[in-house]
Amino acid sequence: MAHQEKATSGVEWRITLGDGSSKSLVPDAGPVSRIWIGLKGLIAGLVLKVWKFLKRAGDIGVDDPRKVIHCLKVGMALTVVSLFYYMRPLYKGVGGNAMWAIMTVVVVFENTVGATICKSLNRVFGTTLAGFLAFGVHWVASQSGQEFEPLITGASVFLLASTATFSRFIPSVKARFDYGAMIFILTFSLVTVSGYRVDKLFDMAHQRISTIIIGTSLCILVTMFICPIWAGGELHILISNNMDKLANSLVGCVDEHFNYNGELKDSDKQPDKKLLGYKCVLSSKATEESIAKFARWEPAHGRFNFKHPWQQYLKIGASMRSCAYCVEALNRCIDSENQAPEFTKKHLSNICLKVSSNSSSVIKEVAKTIKTMKRSPSIDSLVEEMRSAVQDLQNELNFLPKVLSPPEVLHPESKETEETTSSTTHLLEVIPVVTFASLMIEISSRIQAIVETVEELAELAEFKGEVQEKAKQNQPNTNRIVASQLNDDQQTMKALERV
Amino acid sequence: MAHQEKATSGVEWRITLGDGSSKSLVPDAGPVSRIWIGLKGLIAGLVLKVWKFLKRAGDIGVDDPRKVIHCLKVGMALTVVSLFYYMRPLYKGVGGNAMWAIMTVVVVFENTVGATICKSLNRVFGTTLAGFLAFGVHWVASQSGQEFEPLITGASVFLLASTATFSRFIPSVKARFDYGAMIFILTFSLVTVSGYRVDKLFDMAHQRISTIIIGTSLCILVTMFICPIWAGGELHILISNNMDKLANSLVGCVDEHFNYNGELKDSDKQPDKKLLGYKCVLSSKATEESIAKFARWEPAHGRFNFKHPWQQYLKIGASMRSCAYCVEALNRCIDSENQAPEFTKKHLSNICLKVSSNSSSVIKEVAKTIKTMKRSPSIDSLVEEMRSAVQDLQNELNFLPKVLSPPEVLHPESKETEETTSSTTHLLEVIPVVTFASLMIEISSRIQAIVETVEELAELAEFKGEVQEKAKQNQPNTNRIVASQLNDDQQTMKALERV
Repeated sequence: MAHQEKATSGVEWRITLGDGSSKSLVPDAGPVSRIWIGLKGLIAGLVLKVWKFLKRAGDIGVDDPRKVIHCLKVGMALTVVSLFYYMRPLYKGVGGNAMWAIMTVVVVFENTVGATICKSLNRVFGTTLAGFLAFGVHWVASQSGQEFEPLITGASVFLLASTATFSRFIPSVKARFDYGAMIFILTFSLVTVSGYRVDKLFDMAHQRISTIIIGTSLCILVTMFICPIWAGGELHILISNNMDKLANSLVGCVDEHFNYNGELKDSDKQPDKKLLGYKCVLSSKATEESIAKFARWEPAHGRFNFKHPWQQYLKIGASMRSCAYCVEALNRCIDSENQAPEFTKKHLSNICLKVSSNSSSVIKEVAKTIKTMKRSPSIDSLVEEMRSAVQDLQNELNFLPKVLSPPEVLHPESKETEETTSSTTHLLEVIPVVTFASLMIEISSRIQAIVETVEELAELAEFKGEVQEKAKQNQPNTNRIVASQLNDDQQTMKALERV
Repeated sequence: MAHQEKATSGVEWRITLGDGSSKSLVPDAGPVSRIWIGLKGLIAGLVLKVWKFLKRAGDIGVDDPRKVIHCLKVGMALTVVSLFYYMRPLYKGVGGNAMWAIMTVVVVFENTVGATICKSLNRVFGTTLAGFLAFGVHWVASQSGQEFEPLITGASVFLLASTATFSRFIPSVKARFDYGAMIFILTFSLVTVSGYRVDKLFDMAHQRISTIIIGTSLCILVTMFICPIWAGGELHILISNNMDKLANSLVGCVDEHFNYNGELKDSDKQPDKKLLGYKCVLSSKATEESIAKFARWEPAHGRFNFKHPWQQYLKIGASMRSCAYCVEALNRCIDSENQAPEFTKKHLSNICLKVSSNSSSVIKEVAKTIKTMKRSPSIDSLVEEMRSAVQDLQNELNFLPKVLSPPEVLHPESKETEETTSSTTHLLEVIPVVTFASLMIEISSRIQAIVETVEELAELAEFKGEVQEKAKQNQPNTNRIVASQLNDDQQTMKALERV
């Protein structure tokens, strides 16, 4: 009877779970069932978490298939290098040291070609240098008798490890040879210290260096010849895409301020997308620097020579950021509480829109110059147009007090100001518009700085001049490039969010 | 005779070299001497370069002695761990696998405690997990016969290496377990593949894991107990110092714009120092993020608990950067070509200076709150003062058109504007001052955002309230802290320049 009751309560409890809403029964259930509920909730939560995690991982793969390819490349390189274990003749050649080839592949294989080459060369040279030094120390130590040997080797390890660690703090060493210094310490310590126990030290070192060379060569080959991702190309695309984003967010800001102020305020999707543009520029400094560091290790590839001026891209990035600070300030004007009255806005809207569209077409033209690596024939005229628009804006501002003042205060020399001014207004009301306009003027002067840095790049990298006709022929082609860049664009954006 | 002539020419030539200035003799000298001169120049250049390099390295050591201490710590840890080779009983225990202890120390030992712990735990757990998995795969493979064994192990290496590599692209994994994933691939490949050749696989794995644990424990002990550098502490100091810099550069900017405009323009030292302040804030995002990443691995230390809200520091950093953008815009006003005429500047100078000094004292008070980890009793009143100063500034701006307009246009209701206005002026001339003032207003609102994020931190980290009297008693103490922070300040600044 008691047994049956228990069973019933068990059934009831199961019904409760199935229902899920009637929690009043839970306090009545025994501790076992409570634990069971808790456990089930935990498992369900875990499954949901794992599912979300996998979904996010899947998204990453879909967004950037090159990442998946990179993973397959790593798997392939590792499988190939493990042939040294599986095939008897190969294993005989290197023996247990085949391990070093595997280790090298795991440690050295990076996403971009430049990073892989940088690490590979650092590893080979660090190992070789440390190996020779360690031999010297080992020879000196072995000459000085059994008692002194550990002392000498110990002291040398202490000294050289400390010095090499310190060298990693020096900026010029850190930028290029950070990994090499670590490998130097590693190899030196291993060879010097194990020299005390291992007899055939020379054989060991020889095999180790050769396996490392095998591993690094394999990595470099795989990374360069199977769907290569060049750090230089990434930097090139990142910079030109960031420029497009900057142009778009500038136009977006001004449009929003003047045209769609009331209409679009509710739908927050449009502004968000625009906002992201200049924020990308603001936050991509670290990415740019790390890619540029690796780009200079890369050999000539595609349109880039070996000594392509990658440092200049960093300068372009800095000038873009300086412009993005101003766009940030523009954006703040939109959000600010005390908006200018409509009629003062209207007065300046046309000219401001003209300045913004001219500015953004200058930026876009410059971005195109970078993308196509050809000097633009129209950039000078575009800059000139932008300048004249800015001049017009300044003139408009000059007339603003007359427009705003009551008609009787008009100065005698002003004849052009026969505009319909229905009311006087306080300066306080004009401040937002004035601030906005002076920011626009500042932005245009910063855009000229961007143009200058890009012109420096064109000189350093010897961009070809483009004949006017050719430019027209290339139009559809360029559009296709832009479309494919837009795709990369989203990927870069996502990559940046992750950084 | 001919021999004597040669000797003479040799002497002559040496005299030429000693003199150094009479180069007319060089073309007469033979190719050997020319090579010699070239070589000497090369060597001199090299020596100079090395000397400069060493000097710079020395400066780094003098600027931040903790770096030197870190290097000595690495050397010490390596020497201690190499005792496994030197001492026979220890060597018997682990054999050739002692190598793994050395390798662990070299790879895992980092500058800060958090980074070392992060890498250590990643290494230990990555190795253990991969080891168990590899055993499973090895067992399955060995059951399926000689022919299939390489196929199964090869396929498993390919699959797991690809998957683990892919997991390193997932942001949440990358932030915490990037190194662990690499070690996982390494260990799994090594154990699975070498299982094909090595018989005593279990012994090998056991010894390897124990040596890795020995290595990591040694690293953690040394890094925690000998002059520890806590990532959390570094972040704490970085944020509060950046705040002080922001406050100083804000005051510096406004001072320069209004007071010392003409006087200080020539001496560029003062402005440079001020400029550096907010630029540090702008460029320290990457540093903050990487330190915060390591800080959460650290155990409770000093004034920080285990779950100290390090993420909140990143929010504070972001709010500071948003304020620094505006300071950048302020700075641009100073450099801009069309300056406001002196009298309009003079009109606003007092109130602007008041706003800037109030704003900077709010920032400094907040920085003090962070430094001392005690809620400030005066922050509310300081914010209130700042707000009222901003209100005054807005009022002044409101009266500006009346001040600027000729006296006859004065509106009837304005009685307070009996100031001396000697001339009418165009709006264009006021624009710089108006822009400047509206930026000041914006800055003060962004400072309030900083105050809010810091208050959130105070709540999350449960800062203690400070009694008014206690605050006074602590004054000299605080000063001492500030002085010592100033020292760190310079170090952080230098560290940032290097990043």
